[in-house]
Amino acid sequence: MIETDIIIIGAGPVGLFAIFEAGLLKLKCHLIDSLPQAGGQCSEIYPKKPIYDIPGFPSVLAGDLVDNLMEQARPFKPGFTLGEAAEKIEKQEDGSFIVTTSKGTQHHAPIVMIAGGLGVFEPRKPPVENLADYEDKGVEYIIKDPEFYRGKRCVIAGGGDSALDWSIFLAEKNIASEVALVHRRSSFRGHLDSVQKVMDLAEAGKIKLITEAEVVGVAGEGKVENVTIKHQKQGEIVMDTDHFIPLFGLKPSLGPIADWGLEIEKNAIKVDTRDYSTNIEGIYAIGDVNTYEGKLKLILCGFHEGTIALQSAFARIHPDKKNVLKYTTVNGVQGF
Amino acid sequence: MIETDIIIIGAGPVGLFAIFEAGLLKLKCHLIDSLPQAGGQCSEIYPKKPIYDIPGFPSVLAGDLVDNLMEQARPFKPGFTLGEAAEKIEKQEDGSFIVTTSKGTQHHAPIVMIAGGLGVFEPRKPPVENLADYEDKGVEYIIKDPEFYRGKRCVIAGGGDSALDWSIFLAEKNIASEVALVHRRSSFRGHLDSVQKVMDLAEAGKIKLITEAEVVGVAGEGKVENVTIKHQKQGEIVMDTDHFIPLFGLKPSLGPIADWGLEIEKNAIKVDTRDYSTNIEGIYAIGDVNTYEGKLKLILCGFHEGTIALQSAFARIHPDKKNVLKYTTVNGVQGF
Repeated sequence: MIETDIIIIGAGPVGLFAIFEAGLLKLKCHLIDSLPQAGGQCSEIYPKKPIYDIPGFPSVLAGDLVDNLMEQARPFKPGFTLGEAAEKIEKQEDGSFIVTTSKGTQHHAPIVMIAGGLGVFEPRKPPVENLADYEDKGVEYIIKDPEFYRGKRCVIAGGGDSALDWSIFLAEKNIASEVALVHRRSSFRGHLDSVQKVMDLAEAGKIKLITEAEVVGVAGEGKVENVTIKHQKQGEIVMDTDHFIPLFGLKPSLGPIADWGLEIEKNAIKVDTRDYSTNIEGIYAIGDVNTYEGKLKLILCGFHEGTIALQSAFARIHPDKKNVLKYTTVNGVQGF
Repeated sequence: MIETDIIIIGAGPVGLFAIFEAGLLKLKCHLIDSLPQAGGQCSEIYPKKPIYDIPGFPSVLAGDLVDNLMEQARPFKPGFTLGEAAEKIEKQEDGSFIVTTSKGTQHHAPIVMIAGGLGVFEPRKPPVENLADYEDKGVEYIIKDPEFYRGKRCVIAGGGDSALDWSIFLAEKNIASEVALVHRRSSFRGHLDSVQKVMDLAEAGKIKLITEAEVVGVAGEGKVENVTIKHQKQGEIVMDTDHFIPLFGLKPSLGPIADWGLEIEKNAIKVDTRDYSTNIEGIYAIGDVNTYEGKLKLILCGFHEGTIALQSAFARIHPDKKNVLKYTTVNGVQGF
């Protein structure tokens, strides 16, 4: 069991800065993130993109901002549980919390601060009625290992780069025995050369291209055996297949946190702006994961929210201590 | 008359960052500050001091932070009225405001944003009953030009560096004809070598040093003619003098803004945390100058407050336009 003062869920820029502000109050933090490194989207999605609206930085690369925040937090020796999603929370009798990750790692603290950003990214699923019944039984939303599809018949759905590129890969390299690509429109959103390649492979008979059509049904005994495709002009056809792979991109989702009993509004956690506390005493939500009247999903707002929330967290942990704000300009930063 | 979208009163870090956030909303700003340069206290009082709690900067010199914020604001071509205090505000029939400075410069805008920090720094005055009657008639709280005191008898009061240094300067250079230094305690708070020099000059008969004593009265016909000094052991003495100069340091004060009809609490402006608006529609207060439940006087909080306030200001200026938050990472910063 990992013991700390504050469990921070989410190691993006807002979670990282909270370490520093907690440290000034002599509170220790341990961060949990499903991504394998700190920095959240800044590290995972756009480390080399410049950000222009961090106060004091006319321009800063997202990755450099994360490096700076890690450096700023360093004196306070934060702990990290990375590559594991916070899955379960249990309130203890004394009001403290145990947070358990997807891999079973347990963390115990009097305060939980959710800085989960836009949440975890989940695949967008097409509205096919019994789709969930076939998940991992022939329905996959992400291609992890193309070898998994060797010698199999595959129906891929989607109109973006992911659908195009995987169709090309599975067909051109003769991995799948059959590749069908189903797309709702007649034009694709992907790169022009990928579109051209799909057209060429379709002409060569290596991809069965079905546009202006949607997969509307999936059926089989215990696993996918066929899909029903509804063509806008030609009506429905049933196609035998081993796999149905909808590749409609990812959408942000709160993930398991959505089931923690927190008040949720528009896929975000409602907070009291006086201290960014949630409806559960001892749990705070800061940064893009929270919502309130006038909320702006900006990193700089998360910095403020975390700083204010930590004052309240301090008062909860030390109900008898009076906290007097000390300016770092006067005394510098004393680490642990 | 200077015309703009937003008059920002105070050119400290919070006022400067507001230019940038206003610019993203295509709103122009004009800043007024009583100091002769932008940057507020960061430039005036501690430009070479490191600050440790600006998010993303493990350490930054206050002066460098100001330079960075000026650079970040530059694309939006802010206007500046520096070295002039915002003194008077008049609400126009259409709801807009005219702000007039101490030197009579007039500014007109639909929105006023007060980012005045701790306010203007006013001299601390000793509790002498009729002191105000003699201001500029022999009572001065700041020595602007020492030559003003040539050949005059001066009573200086105070125990810090300012009182020590000016006593030394006026006595050692034979500017004043007589110098008396009155201090409440027997020890001084100033630099040791200054204290030693005052002792030496007192021994040489060039400074009349009166410790454990206070000036309790000032009298004269139309101008200062004498002061009453109450000694803790020896009782009261009356000393003839041309000038009484209390040098007890500066204290922050809201200054003229205190008379603008704004709701004031603890020397700060009360705001609604939903948009940091004041009780007067169209006037906002951001940064150290405002107060609300849980307020922290931190620069990073002012950055957030300004950003939120500007959304509300935008809606006031453009009631029909829907503002959609655009991320700078996507499109960069387009200046004016």
